[in-house]
Amino acid sequence: MSKVHNYSAGPCILPQEVFQEASNAVLDFNNSGLSILEISHRSPDFVAVMEEARQLVKDILKVPEGYTVLFLQGGASTGFLTAAYNMLTTNGKAAYVNTGSWSTKAIKEAKKLGNADEIASSADKNFNYIPKNYDIPAGADYLHLTSNNTIFGTQIKMFPKTDVPVLCDMSSDIFSREINVADFDLIYAGAQKNLGPAGATLYIVKESVFQKSGRDIPSMLDLEIHHKKDSMFNTPPVYSVYVSMLNLRYMIKQGGLAAMQKKAEQRAELIYREIERNPLFEAAVPDIEDRSKMNATFVLKDEVHKDRFDLLVKEARINGLKGHRSVGGYRASMYNALPVDSVQVLVETMQELEKGA
Amino acid sequence: MSKVHNYSAGPCILPQEVFQEASNAVLDFNNSGLSILEISHRSPDFVAVMEEARQLVKDILKVPEGYTVLFLQGGASTGFLTAAYNMLTTNGKAAYVNTGSWSTKAIKEAKKLGNADEIASSADKNFNYIPKNYDIPAGADYLHLTSNNTIFGTQIKMFPKTDVPVLCDMSSDIFSREINVADFDLIYAGAQKNLGPAGATLYIVKESVFQKSGRDIPSMLDLEIHHKKDSMFNTPPVYSVYVSMLNLRYMIKQGGLAAMQKKAEQRAELIYREIERNPLFEAAVPDIEDRSKMNATFVLKDEVHKDRFDLLVKEARINGLKGHRSVGGYRASMYNALPVDSVQVLVETMQELEKGA
Repeated sequence: MSKVHNYSAGPCILPQEVFQEASNAVLDFNNSGLSILEISHRSPDFVAVMEEARQLVKDILKVPEGYTVLFLQGGASTGFLTAAYNMLTTNGKAAYVNTGSWSTKAIKEAKKLGNADEIASSADKNFNYIPKNYDIPAGADYLHLTSNNTIFGTQIKMFPKTDVPVLCDMSSDIFSREINVADFDLIYAGAQKNLGPAGATLYIVKESVFQKSGRDIPSMLDLEIHHKKDSMFNTPPVYSVYVSMLNLRYMIKQGGLAAMQKKAEQRAELIYREIERNPLFEAAVPDIEDRSKMNATFVLKDEVHKDRFDLLVKEARINGLKGHRSVGGYRASMYNALPVDSVQVLVETMQELEKGA
Repeated sequence: MSKVHNYSAGPCILPQEVFQEASNAVLDFNNSGLSILEISHRSPDFVAVMEEARQLVKDILKVPEGYTVLFLQGGASTGFLTAAYNMLTTNGKAAYVNTGSWSTKAIKEAKKLGNADEIASSADKNFNYIPKNYDIPAGADYLHLTSNNTIFGTQIKMFPKTDVPVLCDMSSDIFSREINVADFDLIYAGAQKNLGPAGATLYIVKESVFQKSGRDIPSMLDLEIHHKKDSMFNTPPVYSVYVSMLNLRYMIKQGGLAAMQKKAEQRAELIYREIERNPLFEAAVPDIEDRSKMNATFVLKDEVHKDRFDLLVKEARINGLKGHRSVGGYRASMYNALPVDSVQVLVETMQELEKGA
C-alpha cells in the first residue's frame, strides 16, 4: 500500500519515529512493565516527562528568564477564557485583532468577562488578508492576536511593535518559525498541529501576568496556580504530554526551529509557485505577504474541473485537502512533519489536472 | 520478568487487551495507513469513535431518555466549575456534602460563583466516614456529592433520596457498580480510573439542566453547547476518547456493570478480610459500611514493621501502594482492571509480614 499524504488541518501529521516510540510506550513505558496509560502522573518517571517537555519548549523557543511553560488542557477554546481571566481587569479594556473564526471566538469569550474591543478586522473580505497599520489603544490591558488562521490561510509575518502587552494564540504555527518570546506576555497553543496529539495545550507565560487582572480566578483557569504546581495542579493529559515530549526531542534532532522554518519555507514555496503557475487554480489569499506557510488555501477557477481533481487527489492518496466550508476549495495544511515529497505529489497532481484539461 | 501489580490511585490499570489495540492504533488506525494521533477529529472514522463511546456509556449505565453523554476535558477540577456555572443560579444556593479533598475543592470553586453551603462534613475525623442523616435545604439549586473518596478510602453506598437535583462527582467509582442515573441531574467523572487514560472527562447530563443557572456561561463550560455539537464543539482529546471506547467495549465483553460490580466486591472482600484478620494492620475507615470498594486505606498498628513491609511489597512487584500524605499508611486502589489475583498477592504479602514478625 502506497503512502498516505496527510494534509489534515489538525489533529495532523507527526513524525513516524514519534509514532513508533509512542506506540511502544502504550505497551511498556521505560521498561517499567507498565503502560504509559496506567502509571501515576505523580510517579518519578512521569514527572520527568513533564519536566523534560517544559524544558524542551524553553530550549527550542529560547524562552527567556521570567517566563513559565505549562502543559494544560482545553485547547485554544479554553485559552480564550484563560487569557481574559488572567489579564483583563474588571474596568480595563482589551484590544483584539480579528483575523478569522478563532479570533472571533476569542473576542466572544472575552466579552463575557469584560471589555474586549475589536480594533481591526479583515471580516470585510472574508478574512483573506491580515489587517495592518491599526492603532493600538495605549491603555489597553493587552493586544490579542491570532498568528495563523488555518481556515482562511493567512498568517501574521510581522508582529506589531507596541508597549501594550501582546497575547497570541499560536495554535497553528508555533514551532514552525523563529519567534521572539520576549515580545509576548502570553502565548497559548493547542498541541494538535506542530507539537503533539490533541488533548494538551501549551502556555508560555510571562510571570508578571500573574494576578494582573485582580480577579478571583477559577483555579483551573489561574495560570499562577498551574505555575506554582509545576503544571501538575491536577492530573495532566499524560499521553498527550508524553508524545509532545517525544516530538520536541525529535524536533531538536532534526535541527530545531531553524530547520523547521527552512522546511516550512520549502513546502510553501513549492505549493504557492504551482498555484500561481497553474492556470486552473488561484490562491484564496491575494496578498503574497499574508499567505500562510502552514495552510495554503486555493480554489479552482472553474468548478468544472472539480470532480476530476478530487479523483486525482484520491488516487494520489492525498488526505484532508478539502477546504473549510467558510472558504470552499482546497486547503493544504503543511505542518512540520509533512515531508516536502508529499507537497511534490500534490504539485504533480495539480499538473496532471492541467494536462488533462 | 514477573508481573507488576498496579495499585496506582489514578491514572491506573486498564485491561491488557485494551493496551494492545491502543498501541496498534498509534501506528495504524482502522487500516487507514494513518495513526489515530494524526487523523482529523472531523474524519468519519473518528466521529464514529466518539459516537460509539457515547452510546456505550448509555448502554452500560442504562442512561435514560432525556440525558446526554459528553466527553470533555479538564478533569473533575474543571467539573467543579462547570457544575456551578450550569446549575447555580445567581441568587440561589447550592448544598455540598464535604467528604474529603475533592469535595473541599468543589466547594471552593463553586463559592467563586455564588452561594455554596457545606451542609454536612466529615472533616472532624479527617474524613474517615460518610456523613448521613443531614438536612437538605428544600430550595437548594442542587445537592453536590462525591461518591468515592480516593484519598481517605470512603464511599457513599446509599445515595440520599431528595427532591433537590443531585450532582455527583463519580470520578473514582463510576462503572464499578450499578447506579440509577435517573437519580442524578449531573454526573461527572475524570476518565483516569475505570474509564480510560487521563485527558478525557465524562459528563452525563439531564437535558433539563441546560440554561438552568441563567448565567452567560463561557462556551467551553456550557454543557448545552457541547451537547448541541455532539461533544465536538472543539477538538476533543482524541486518543483518550478512543482508548475509553476500547475499554467500554471490553467492559461489555466481560459482562458489563454486573460483572464489574461482582469483581469489585471480590477484591474488597479479600483485602478488608485480611486487614481485619491480620493483627499487624488496621483499616483507616472504622465503619465497614463506609469503606470504599475502590480504595482500601489501612495502616500498620506499629510502624516498626514499616521497612520490612515496604521491602516485601517491593519484592512482590506491588506498585503504587503508598497512602496519600493526608492519611499515611497504605492505599490499595483496586479499579476495574485489577485482577483478583493481584489482591491475592497483596494479601499473601501481608501474611508474610505477619509470619516474620
